[in-house]
Amino acid sequence: MSILETLNSPAPLKRMSVEELNTLAGELREKLLTVAINNGGHLSSNLGTVELTVALHSVFSSPYDRIIWDVGHQAYAHKLLTGRYKDFDTLRQYGGISGFPRRKESEHDSFGAGHASTSISAALGLALADKQAGKRNYTVAVAGDGAFTGGMIYEALNNTSVKGLRLIIVLNDNEMSISPSVGGINTYLGRLRTSPRYLGFKYKLKKFFAAIPLIGVPLTKMTRGIKNFFKRLVWRDNMFENLGLHYYGPVDGYDIKRMRTVLGDAMRDKNVSIVHVRTQKGRGYSPAEEQPEKYHGVPKGGKYKAGESFSSVFGDIMTRRGGEDKKLLAVTAAMCEGTGLKEFAARYPDRFCDVGIAEEHAMTFCGGLSAGDMHPVFAVYSTFAQRAYDQLIHDVALQGLPMILALDRAGIVGEDGPTHHGLFDVGFLLQIPSVEVYSPENYEDMRYSMAKGFEFNGITAVRYPRGAEQVYDRGGFVAADSGNMFYADYGKKPKVAIISYGRLCGNAVKAAQLLCKKGVSVRVVKILRLKPLNCDVFFELLKDSSLLYFAEEGMRSGGFAERALATMCEHGQTAGKTAVIRAVEDRFVPHGDTDRLFEDCGFLPNQMADEIWLKFGK
Amino acid sequence: MSILETLNSPAPLKRMSVEELNTLAGELREKLLTVAINNGGHLSSNLGTVELTVALHSVFSSPYDRIIWDVGHQAYAHKLLTGRYKDFDTLRQYGGISGFPRRKESEHDSFGAGHASTSISAALGLALADKQAGKRNYTVAVAGDGAFTGGMIYEALNNTSVKGLRLIIVLNDNEMSISPSVGGINTYLGRLRTSPRYLGFKYKLKKFFAAIPLIGVPLTKMTRGIKNFFKRLVWRDNMFENLGLHYYGPVDGYDIKRMRTVLGDAMRDKNVSIVHVRTQKGRGYSPAEEQPEKYHGVPKGGKYKAGESFSSVFGDIMTRRGGEDKKLLAVTAAMCEGTGLKEFAARYPDRFCDVGIAEEHAMTFCGGLSAGDMHPVFAVYSTFAQRAYDQLIHDVALQGLPMILALDRAGIVGEDGPTHHGLFDVGFLLQIPSVEVYSPENYEDMRYSMAKGFEFNGITAVRYPRGAEQVYDRGGFVAADSGNMFYADYGKKPKVAIISYGRLCGNAVKAAQLLCKKGVSVRVVKILRLKPLNCDVFFELLKDSSLLYFAEEGMRSGGFAERALATMCEHGQTAGKTAVIRAVEDRFVPHGDTDRLFEDCGFLPNQMADEIWLKFGK
Repeated sequence: MSILETLNSPAPLKRMSVEELNTLAGELREKLLTVAINNGGHLSSNLGTVELTVALHSVFSSPYDRIIWDVGHQAYAHKLLTGRYKDFDTLRQYGGISGFPRRKESEHDSFGAGHASTSISAALGLALADKQAGKRNYTVAVAGDGAFTGGMIYEALNNTSVKGLRLIIVLNDNEMSISPSVGGINTYLGRLRTSPRYLGFKYKLKKFFAAIPLIGVPLTKMTRGIKNFFKRLVWRDNMFENLGLHYYGPVDGYDIKRMRTVLGDAMRDKNVSIVHVRTQKGRGYSPAEEQPEKYHGVPKGGKYKAGESFSSVFGDIMTRRGGEDKKLLAVTAAMCEGTGLKEFAARYPDRFCDVGIAEEHAMTFCGGLSAGDMHPVFAVYSTFAQRAYDQLIHDVALQGLPMILALDRAGIVGEDGPTHHGLFDVGFLLQIPSVEVYSPENYEDMRYSMAKGFEFNGITAVRYPRGAEQVYDRGGFVAADSGNMFYADYGKKPKVAIISYGRLCGNAVKAAQLLCKKGVSVRVVKILRLKPLNCDVFFELLKDSSLLYFAEEGMRSGGFAERALATMCEHGQTAGKTAVIRAVEDRFVPHGDTDRLFEDCGFLPNQMADEIWLKFGK
Repeated sequence: MSILETLNSPAPLKRMSVEELNTLAGELREKLLTVAINNGGHLSSNLGTVELTVALHSVFSSPYDRIIWDVGHQAYAHKLLTGRYKDFDTLRQYGGISGFPRRKESEHDSFGAGHASTSISAALGLALADKQAGKRNYTVAVAGDGAFTGGMIYEALNNTSVKGLRLIIVLNDNEMSISPSVGGINTYLGRLRTSPRYLGFKYKLKKFFAAIPLIGVPLTKMTRGIKNFFKRLVWRDNMFENLGLHYYGPVDGYDIKRMRTVLGDAMRDKNVSIVHVRTQKGRGYSPAEEQPEKYHGVPKGGKYKAGESFSSVFGDIMTRRGGEDKKLLAVTAAMCEGTGLKEFAARYPDRFCDVGIAEEHAMTFCGGLSAGDMHPVFAVYSTFAQRAYDQLIHDVALQGLPMILALDRAGIVGEDGPTHHGLFDVGFLLQIPSVEVYSPENYEDMRYSMAKGFEFNGITAVRYPRGAEQVYDRGGFVAADSGNMFYADYGKKPKVAIISYGRLCGNAVKAAQLLCKKGVSVRVVKILRLKPLNCDVFFELLKDSSLLYFAEEGMRSGGFAERALATMCEHGQTAGKTAVIRAVEDRFVPHGDTDRLFEDCGFLPNQMADEIWLKFGK
């Protein structure tokens, strides 16, 4: 029996030898590798932090001490050590273990995450609350160097000077390309800085540092990435100490003994401290070590499907357009690969900007570019665009500046769950003056929407789901309103209308076909451009319908359906009609397979058909 | 004739002597003081930056060179110098000169503002666009030290390393309490660092610095404010140089000659540079110099009205509750005075946190506090809460954590205009699962809503307008749904219902009274709790109405009215009824007197009455 199997809590780690802890780390790595490849999940980040997790749990007493994981995509080992080993095979499955820390899942998950750069803010809150309550426990925030490109980290660091907080920040620095000469100093520094004499040596060390040539790639490109920026901060002048924190490190993230010593020093320090731990993404699994970006998240079975997706089609459109339109510029917030912009970035490096995990800055930067007569396209996941809601209003829309907002992963994203679903964007986009909103459900729609965006002298938001277009017979669709709307009739003189947009249109058509077989004729109205809506055409398409069934893959409140239905009502278009809105009700949608989540929301074709049948068919 | 009167553009400043520029500065100060006191406006910040503005316009060639003002509450002198002198008496009036930079107002306003910390992001965009276009102009971002507590500044600084950007950042440091010994070094440093030999001297200077005791107040409180943090960054280690910027300064912001020299050096520098200028809030007007916080913004006539406001009532509720509830903790993002928390802060300093202009951090910090079993109240202006939209979803609502969100300045705020109106909050709050939303229209409602929030184990948002409760006869109102809803009938068997919430309820009652006189009976339904809505009660109150007239001081799209009307329609409650939604249509509301803006939106009692009369009365 392995050590891991025998653990019901992390408490026994405190009594284990370093050798046992290393054995345990090996077991953890093996287990999480197997499960992540089987179920899909974040691989590189989790492999990198196994020893760090073991060290943390062998020093701190969770859940009394609180460990908070920034982003949360590195918490598999933490989950395996905190009573979730037995259920771990259900990782990322519906009803199973979440891929991110989740407060409801375990008392060891002190704070949930999914988005970046929040851990220090949350940890500060917890540490202050504990201080107020007179508790003597520790709060540990573990944040990657990537998270340090997000402004919230600095907002939080600016507030760490409260006396008596038992707060430790672990900087999980997984930058891999440190040149050998610098590597030699790491060990020296790690030993020196965590020793009692560190403060005395500090200024001498600074001189020593000043003589070392600049580390890493010179800063010549905006795409240079996060790491150099951050390393300079740490190495050339210790910013953290200026902020009032005590700095410990850097320390090797695979040397459990050393980490235990340094974390122990940080515990005894009455100041808020930051422990700089060097780790390697994908550690211990050579494919992931070699291609950490590719193995950051792996699909089920560990293999990527070839073929098109909305992201790749978006990338192709951008690459093609980039050749002819020199004003086109693509901006991404650390999502070059995910948003399909790799080819564009390679071909037009001068017109591609990866700004780091900094959506707020990205949006305002787009405003500036647009004011300077460029045509920026900000490609961002729907859920992360929430970060830039104010900037979209204040720095783009209000200023009357054109841009394209390409919202990838709109709607339900599946296994990544509630922190990653893009269910709010339609609501917040419809609110904002002068934003045109398109919701393509296939690649042709996608091309149409982007083409409209390239021409439009305002903000165009194009929102599209994760993955590929649905496969179904679109032959029945007839364009209306110059291609901004479509309708398809199933059966004669339909009295039932299903109004939908985006990916759910496929389900609507399938539902219509099911109903048609049962003798109920259905018109499916597909809205491509959600705003502005051509009401004359819309009303005309629905004038003979007795039942208006809206199907919306987004929050019901503030969504398209409420808006459309209220407008119809105001224009006297609902007289004698029954209306149903099927959307995401006032709750968060859990994680799991997308089809299972669709079922959860009543979005499957047979569910829609049944609901309509109950209302209308009998 | 003064110099100022003769200027149609800032171009002549280039040929003026320092003496003339100083005379001009005096004229500017006099003019803006007079107008700001007459019309109300931002006084302290504008008085402080007169000489800096003159220096900038005497060195740079606006609009070819672009000057971008962070927040924009210091741009009066800039406006007076750029062709707006003649119209300046219309400052902040409807149709007049805006209190903030506004792209549509002048080509000299390169980028609009109102919210903080956006200038460097926008300037980066403009500078990159200009570089792409092969232009040789400069972009100058002027940001206060306060703005440097916002994370966006760091996100932007992290991206300034693009080669060949003609970008200069002016740090307008208006911290006033630098101790004399340090003051002596300022001049030395300012001269030394801007000289060609600066780089050679840098390390010697560092040693010199290391021997100087820590400047300013020690960091013992979370409320310590922004300035110390920032000063440490600048003084003890030069963070900017680590980020790849060249640092110039500090320089006296009232020494035009010196500023011209330093700005000239920064222009010739091929690197992105930061010029550190020391200014004083309220400069040249002794009441404002002595109480810069009080004179930050002044009301019309320059005098504050005594008496209650929603903010003061909120403050009183908090202060009273703070005595008995040790778990209560108030958080503000640099708005202690504006949100009415001064007394609370003084009485319970351990339970009051001013985190700086950092709404994102503030919200997640509240999440952490709540997870640690405190009951945080985040008091924030509605418009600034937009900054924390994602954090409210991701770090509070999704985690199931209770807190109170006190949204001050909800609705139309008047003269501060479109960057400050709080018109989006109802839409985005209704969207978010588990948020209860109250919109008090008087102080009693306010107390009720807060009391509910103190009890509720979830998120309570209480949104209330700027200023005082309206004065009108509330005697007709009858409570329904245990006080979450009210109705008042004017005339017998009313067939018209006006449904409203918040401040507009007063206008609705007045409209009802006008209609009643003309023989149209009206029921006014006032919704205090917008979400959740007790539909049974709501439907019952409206069952005999033929006309449903919704009046909403907020964006129509995604607002309460659309939601309520769609729900009624879905429940078959609109049969035989006519519906009208009177809300803010798809546009930004300009600046001006609130009543004038109400007229603009059709919110005045006689406008509502007329509209209803046209629909129903005849």
